[in-house]
Amino acid sequence: MAEDAPRATIASIAAEAGVSVPTVSKVLNGRPDVAPATRALVEEVIERHSYTRRGARGRSRSKLVELVFHELDAGWAAQIIRGVERVAAAERLGVVLSELGGAHRPRQEWLDDVFARGSMGVVFVLSEVDAGQRRQLLSRGVPFVVVDTAGEQPADVPTVGSANWSGGLAATRHLLSLGHRRIAVISGQPDVLCSRARVDGYRSALEEAGIAVDASLIRYGDFALEGGYRHGLELLGAADRPTAVFAGSDMQAVGLLRAARELRLRVPEDLSVVGYDDLPVAEWIGPALTTIRQPLGEMAATATRMLLALARGETLRNPRMDLAVELVVRGSTAPPE
Amino acid sequence: MAEDAPRATIASIAAEAGVSVPTVSKVLNGRPDVAPATRALVEEVIERHSYTRRGARGRSRSKLVELVFHELDAGWAAQIIRGVERVAAAERLGVVLSELGGAHRPRQEWLDDVFARGSMGVVFVLSEVDAGQRRQLLSRGVPFVVVDTAGEQPADVPTVGSANWSGGLAATRHLLSLGHRRIAVISGQPDVLCSRARVDGYRSALEEAGIAVDASLIRYGDFALEGGYRHGLELLGAADRPTAVFAGSDMQAVGLLRAARELRLRVPEDLSVVGYDDLPVAEWIGPALTTIRQPLGEMAATATRMLLALARGETLRNPRMDLAVELVVRGSTAPPE
Repeated sequence: MAEDAPRATIASIAAEAGVSVPTVSKVLNGRPDVAPATRALVEEVIERHSYTRRGARGRSRSKLVELVFHELDAGWAAQIIRGVERVAAAERLGVVLSELGGAHRPRQEWLDDVFARGSMGVVFVLSEVDAGQRRQLLSRGVPFVVVDTAGEQPADVPTVGSANWSGGLAATRHLLSLGHRRIAVISGQPDVLCSRARVDGYRSALEEAGIAVDASLIRYGDFALEGGYRHGLELLGAADRPTAVFAGSDMQAVGLLRAARELRLRVPEDLSVVGYDDLPVAEWIGPALTTIRQPLGEMAATATRMLLALARGETLRNPRMDLAVELVVRGSTAPPE
Repeated sequence: MAEDAPRATIASIAAEAGVSVPTVSKVLNGRPDVAPATRALVEEVIERHSYTRRGARGRSRSKLVELVFHELDAGWAAQIIRGVERVAAAERLGVVLSELGGAHRPRQEWLDDVFARGSMGVVFVLSEVDAGQRRQLLSRGVPFVVVDTAGEQPADVPTVGSANWSGGLAATRHLLSLGHRRIAVISGQPDVLCSRARVDGYRSALEEAGIAVDASLIRYGDFALEGGYRHGLELLGAADRPTAVFAGSDMQAVGLLRAARELRLRVPEDLSVVGYDDLPVAEWIGPALTTIRQPLGEMAATATRMLLALARGETLRNPRMDLAVELVVRGSTAPPE
């Protein structure tokens, strides 16, 4: 456990903060029995010295990995969970599941609990840590990987996503190839990277077809049913309504299909719809949904394998990767009448 | 840690099995470093004496609860997970999620891992333990609760379900009140209690209306999309097809709706459909689904609260309870034409 001379050690941090070595240990281990002011002081010294626990990966860790969702929505989350479970079960690791209730960043209590239970690492899904939290994870030697990152990540954060821009391109090219010219897009939140990448793929497809982008046809929401429905009513209720809509998720597409029904538009005769994700339900609804298949289970499995490699102290060859997506053509798209 | 004279202790078990006390401890704690034959011997002595670890609940346990699904299916599982998370998060407990890959009973390795990580207790969902596994959990002082039990449970196993029989009764009465006389039911597996209870509720409603039960209209499958589709094609393709179908889950109902579309039957004009569960998607598909709302989140939350009470050493006032269900009328049911 020898440290290079200029590097901070638990002892040097304790000395500098004017506390005992066990107190520094308690802070590192997420133990609750440290006064908040003492704790803040210790954290500050840890951060100032970019302290990283040496040998943390060699220490005895619980056989647990953490899986954190910003929000547990039905079908999408189930695919991810199964992908993580598959890899974890093979190594007999327990998967601790948390939901941030819609927030994209965990609270300090959650981090403390992760440290206290000695988890091997964390898979964040559409959620992430801020700089201070990242430092805390690093200083405790707890690796993490981000699946489907919501925001820009620092270069040293491993991420697994999918080819969102290509997905937007493929969906829009498909609609163009059927003869559609007035095509709308409903995406997720504009501050979420994958939403923007898909919209940019849509734009790019229109541009290569020589079609001017009409800003009124670009909508942002969340990836939920309601957004598809609400934007659908607006878009489809307009006099110059689009003949096709590329939705940001299969759930949004289901909401959009409802809006079309209420406006007595037939799909695909009066309106073509492309979804995103290819959840199991996409194949079964009426009409069966043309969609972009995201390999959600494989993204999750890949992230988990990366995490376990990091926990073993390995260096990742490809710490940032996007898996390919695929257009699946079903009954909800057709040439405009 | 005094034990009554006739009760087994770790020492008496070690003596009888002819092994050391630490070896018995290792077996109790799910540690892998015990030879299989030794282990089987120790388990047998533990079981023969109905040994229960005294004071186990007082021992230091990890702040973890286990949540075990026989299978993670999309929407249904998400509701359950959220219910467990809600209660666990309030007590800052981690939820370790496992899926048994369709099996209703966990493997020994899984039990060992639960003992090794010192979880406070287990919530089983549509899954259960056999008598030997139950003894193992009891002997280690790990309480468990079963949500939506698949099979008959011994009287001392706490369970939280919902009023399946009443749900079947309410769904069928609703269809009868609309004037339907030829009503089919598609339920889950016949060896799963909730499937049978719903079918019996259906039967009971027909009987009180003076309608003879036609065995060909009673179908069993699983609760998945495919079952609804397959049975739907058969039922609706027959010459004397039913005018209404009560499906065992919303997902089965989605499969059934597809079968109806393929056979060019309009819902609700030509066919009325009642689902079960009231998943978020039920309200959004076309037509919006009339269904029986199960309080899945509340069932899961209740089970978790029961588990935590058991882990604190409390005795449950109502160790077996069924929560009420509710008919939600939407667009998929109407009088027969």
